[in-house]
Amino acid sequence: MHIPYYVDLLGVFAFALSGALAARGKKMYVDIFGVSLTGFITAIGGGTLRDIILDIHPLAWIRDGNYLIVIGAAVITSVFFSRSISKIPTTIFLVDTVGISLYTILGVQKSLAVGVNPIAAVILGMVSAVFGGVIRDTLINEIPIIFRKEIYASACLAGAFLYVLLNYFGVGPNLSFFSSIALIVLIRLVAVKYKIALPKITD
Amino acid sequence: MHIPYYVDLLGVFAFALSGALAARGKKMYVDIFGVSLTGFITAIGGGTLRDIILDIHPLAWIRDGNYLIVIGAAVITSVFFSRSISKIPTTIFLVDTVGISLYTILGVQKSLAVGVNPIAAVILGMVSAVFGGVIRDTLINEIPIIFRKEIYASACLAGAFLYVLLNYFGVGPNLSFFSSIALIVLIRLVAVKYKIALPKITD
Amino acid sequence: MHIPYYVDLLGVFAFALSGALAARGKKMYVDIFGVSLTGFITAIGGGTLRDIILDIHPLAWIRDGNYLIVIGAAVITSVFFSRSISKIPTTIFLVDTVGISLYTILGVQKSLAVGVNPIAAVILGMVSAVFGGVIRDTLINEIPIIFRKEIYASACLAGAFLYVLLNYFGVGPNLSFFSSIALIVLIRLVAVKYKIALPKITD
Repeated sequence: MHIPYYVDLLGVFAFALSGALAARGKKMYVDIFGVSLTGFITAIGGGTLRDIILDIHPLAWIRDGNYLIVIGAAVITSVFFSRSISKIPTTIFLVDTVGISLYTILGVQKSLAVGVNPIAAVILGMVSAVFGGVIRDTLINEIPIIFRKEIYASACLAGAFLYVLLNYFGVGPNLSFFSSIALIVLIRLVAVKYKIALPKITD
Repeated sequence: MHIPYYVDLLGVFAFALSGALAARGKKMYVDIFGVSLTGFITAIGGGTLRDIILDIHPLAWIRDGNYLIVIGAAVITSVFFSRSISKIPTTIFLVDTVGISLYTILGVQKSLAVGVNPIAAVILGMVSAVFGGVIRDTLINEIPIIFRKEIYASACLAGAFLYVLLNYFGVGPNLSFFSSIALIVLIRLVAVKYKIALPKITD
Repeated sequence: MHIPYYVDLLGVFAFALSGALAARGKKMYVDIFGVSLTGFITAIGGGTLRDIILDIHPLAWIRDGNYLIVIGAAVITSVFFSRSISKIPTTIFLVDTVGISLYTILGVQKSLAVGVNPIAAVILGMVSAVFGGVIRDTLINEIPIIFRKEIYASACLAGAFLYVLLNYFGVGPNLSFFSSIALIVLIRLVAVKYKIALPKITD
């Protein structure tokens, strides 16, 4: 299934919003520039890294100014409505979960479309979804969420793997798309609700 | 206005010098390799990131060995003359300020020249100027200056925005160039002199 | 000398193994995903950065799934055999030393082959060998080894420089290759055995 343009922009909005909100409450000076930059990097980081790795040019936000306008809107929203938004953490969580699901499968589709091997496509799907946040966390000196005790990137990998598998066995694009999205959302919901983590590896 | 080759090299020298000097006084072991690497990354990081994002190849320092020779000279200068240089912090500050101004507008020009949308061109101008330092600070585990209480990248954004605006309204290239440079220098000087910061965003 | 395919894969295995082992013993939650990601980034980070800088596409691990399978095998080895491996630190050290030597000269060869200036080729050789580890250390919030008190990247630079020099003076490819590898291994062994470091630079 081809993801429509406005769904893509909605995903950018969700990611920029969660990125901008993440800049708050840090033990550092946060001004409007810091909030904008973290929102921007969270929203475009993963897709930019994927497209640079795949040599797909021009990048979406270079070609099309609407992405940046949407990011600006998300930053403004985060500044003026943060009090109301912070009252609805479940909403943010759900938006983020839908966001990473969409981005993962979109990333896998783009990778397969340019002839990437299936394992790399699975990895690049996950990279699209989570590396914006990873770059942001690294810049502000936090351990990225993917190295913390939570199933996050693993859910993306599982969904990406399912998509590649269904695709390989000739399952129709719409069914593959929705099943994979559903798997990611499901794993994430169950993992958070029941506090499930991957087992720790110790010596 | 086309920035002459030697002005470009001068900017590289200034950035490499400030980067190499920044490596000193850190709470870590700093040898000639560490100083060289931080000088190198500070000098070429922003432009390299911009050109990779824009898919402009070959990169300047890949094509032309003079950039690396100039960086080497700056590193040697920082090692042998650091005592004298550290007595003139105002000089370093001014060199850095002129450096980021030049790099910003050069970055905007390069971006517009390859048909980038104006908002992205403004962002890439800022990226050219400050991301060498951001990458350096991230590598040595410091919070980058752009996330600290100082107007730095914001000045670059303002100058870049002015340049795009003047360009849009058909103002001549020389006037646009010098006005934008002047705006960045002015904002930076005033902000540092009067300790002006963007307002903090809190919940 | 052309590095045979299986030697390349062996280097990937060695790097992925050392990366995966490095994830252990950190003061953070490490699960199978974290171990895999650090192994993956350590193994492909340096070469990926080099090829993006040089605009060489498609990247090896994008084109050829075997790299990722080998990385997976290294990760599994690190999980199941870590107790035995940790008893043989000298072996790990030697594998890593051979790994960085091979990667350095391979990086220089690739760079010269696409017409890069010799100084940049030396730098890119070093980048190929050590930046996988640098990216990994940055992500998990450690000061990269190259900024610590140890001769590591400097050994790579010395070997890369020797290779470029021998190449310039028309020395045969096999002799150049083995001499440069030997120089890197020798510097690293001597530096570690006699605890030699580059002199500290202080004000």
